[in-house]
Amino acid sequence: MTPPIYERVALIGLGLIASSMCRAMQRGGLAGEIVGTARSAGTRDAARRIGLCDRVADSAAEAVEGADLVVLCVPVGAMEAVARAIGPHLKPGATVSDVGSVKQAVVAAVAPHLPETVHFVPAHPLAGTERSGPEAGFAELFDNRWCLIVPQPGSAPAAVGRLESLWRGMGAETERMSADHHDLVLAVTSHAPHLIAYTMVGVADDLRRVTDSEVIKYSAAGFRDFTRIAASDPTMWRDVFLNNKDATLEILGRFTEELFALQRAIRTGDGARLFEYFSRTRMVRRGIVEAGQDTDAPDFGRGAGRK
Amino acid sequence: MTPPIYERVALIGLGLIASSMCRAMQRGGLAGEIVGTARSAGTRDAARRIGLCDRVADSAAEAVEGADLVVLCVPVGAMEAVARAIGPHLKPGATVSDVGSVKQAVVAAVAPHLPETVHFVPAHPLAGTERSGPEAGFAELFDNRWCLIVPQPGSAPAAVGRLESLWRGMGAETERMSADHHDLVLAVTSHAPHLIAYTMVGVADDLRRVTDSEVIKYSAAGFRDFTRIAASDPTMWRDVFLNNKDATLEILGRFTEELFALQRAIRTGDGARLFEYFSRTRMVRRGIVEAGQDTDAPDFGRGAGRK
Repeated sequence: MTPPIYERVALIGLGLIASSMCRAMQRGGLAGEIVGTARSAGTRDAARRIGLCDRVADSAAEAVEGADLVVLCVPVGAMEAVARAIGPHLKPGATVSDVGSVKQAVVAAVAPHLPETVHFVPAHPLAGTERSGPEAGFAELFDNRWCLIVPQPGSAPAAVGRLESLWRGMGAETERMSADHHDLVLAVTSHAPHLIAYTMVGVADDLRRVTDSEVIKYSAAGFRDFTRIAASDPTMWRDVFLNNKDATLEILGRFTEELFALQRAIRTGDGARLFEYFSRTRMVRRGIVEAGQDTDAPDFGRGAGRK
Repeated sequence: MTPPIYERVALIGLGLIASSMCRAMQRGGLAGEIVGTARSAGTRDAARRIGLCDRVADSAAEAVEGADLVVLCVPVGAMEAVARAIGPHLKPGATVSDVGSVKQAVVAAVAPHLPETVHFVPAHPLAGTERSGPEAGFAELFDNRWCLIVPQPGSAPAAVGRLESLWRGMGAETERMSADHHDLVLAVTSHAPHLIAYTMVGVADDLRRVTDSEVIKYSAAGFRDFTRIAASDPTMWRDVFLNNKDATLEILGRFTEELFALQRAIRTGDGARLFEYFSRTRMVRRGIVEAGQDTDAPDFGRGAGRK
């Protein structure tokens, strides 16, 4: 058996990502000891009840003591307070990372509170489901998914490489990226789509002439696809939008411009333009399936889960 | 064994819906004989090769001869031409139906070409996948899905009831609705969501600073959910938008208004508003799962289809 990559890992926050990391590290024997903590006593109790970590600590300061790797798994808006709380308790030579969905804001919030004796290597695993909390995690969440690593100017190459080994051990592929490019890429592939899905679901829920019950009953005609990501954790997503404002608003601006152009094509009856557009978008799906980033089964393979 | 509901059924157009109807009617023994036809020789050959119908006719006029039920399963824009071609060949007392995604435009296009001796009962099964063509069909497509029935002023109650029995026999639940209400409900639950998904995928595909490869690689962060419905048949969807203009544009107007309000909340940092909005949309998903209209498995149960 190969030795663990880190002797002791501390997970701060015990939601979907942290609980999946815990399961994935256990699956791979990647950590000697996993210590977890969460702000709410209810979450800590739930984690203890299901035996999520080797040990659940009552505070972040306590959790990070002696840890070789500390991963901040809290909503982006809570990162600064956590960094401030753990800063004085970090072991010299430890690596501090995170799993936040935005990177520039996290770097700005966290870096000032870390001592010079630790390595700060932000990261972002592109994986998730619409579930949250310590019971939502599972070991396979990161398999075949990407984890973006965002080394900082002072990150020691060995610390970066070790964190990459951990993510690969948990099933992910890794790629390095700058914080600003990360935030733009994610605005396109994640943040704008989420806001659009939230908006469409909100609009449908609002319409008075179409009853709630009709919106729900007839959702299989397309609408239900939007409701999955619009069921994602509200705190996490509030923080994402507030902390990646510029890139998200820029992409939404592009989206609106394009939506207006298609609305105009509908209004003027420009069928050729619509057909050309829809043929092009069909190819994008093919690329995603070929890249192994989605199932090839029709309807996401929902049939399997059907009653 | 119960006798078939119709002695002979003719399916005009052999795409996903018609081929699934064929499989579902065979599963339930609902039709004595199923005759199919399609405009393109390639589609007819494919249907013959896979043994899709009892008989594949070379023209719509030939297919409908002696049929007790004729179902128009062609894109909405092709309905008028088909109705004109089959009108003189319909058996007196036959029922003519369709599966089009819009109803007012189909009624306007088809009704004038039907003789008074037939019953016209438009219908719309709310089911589909992103696949198209005769090979895409499967018997379970309509199980637990809704089929909306849109009786016309002159529809004989017995003809309506018999068509409803057929759809229930194919696994669907049925509900009656007026054509204009249908078009509004579908604009909300299907047409606007599809246009929005097409737009988001088009925007992502267009962005030059984020490469195509990045959009595809990192799609699991949310974007890939949009690509499924944006991979739907371009001809069918061009026709839907051109034939349900008013309702679709109205819902898109509401959507844009709401999107602007949320963009403003992001710009001004109104986290409370975002949190409240995202909490509300989360409830809609719960309603859909409870209504049996989507799987409860996280991530649509994609895990099952994962490589």
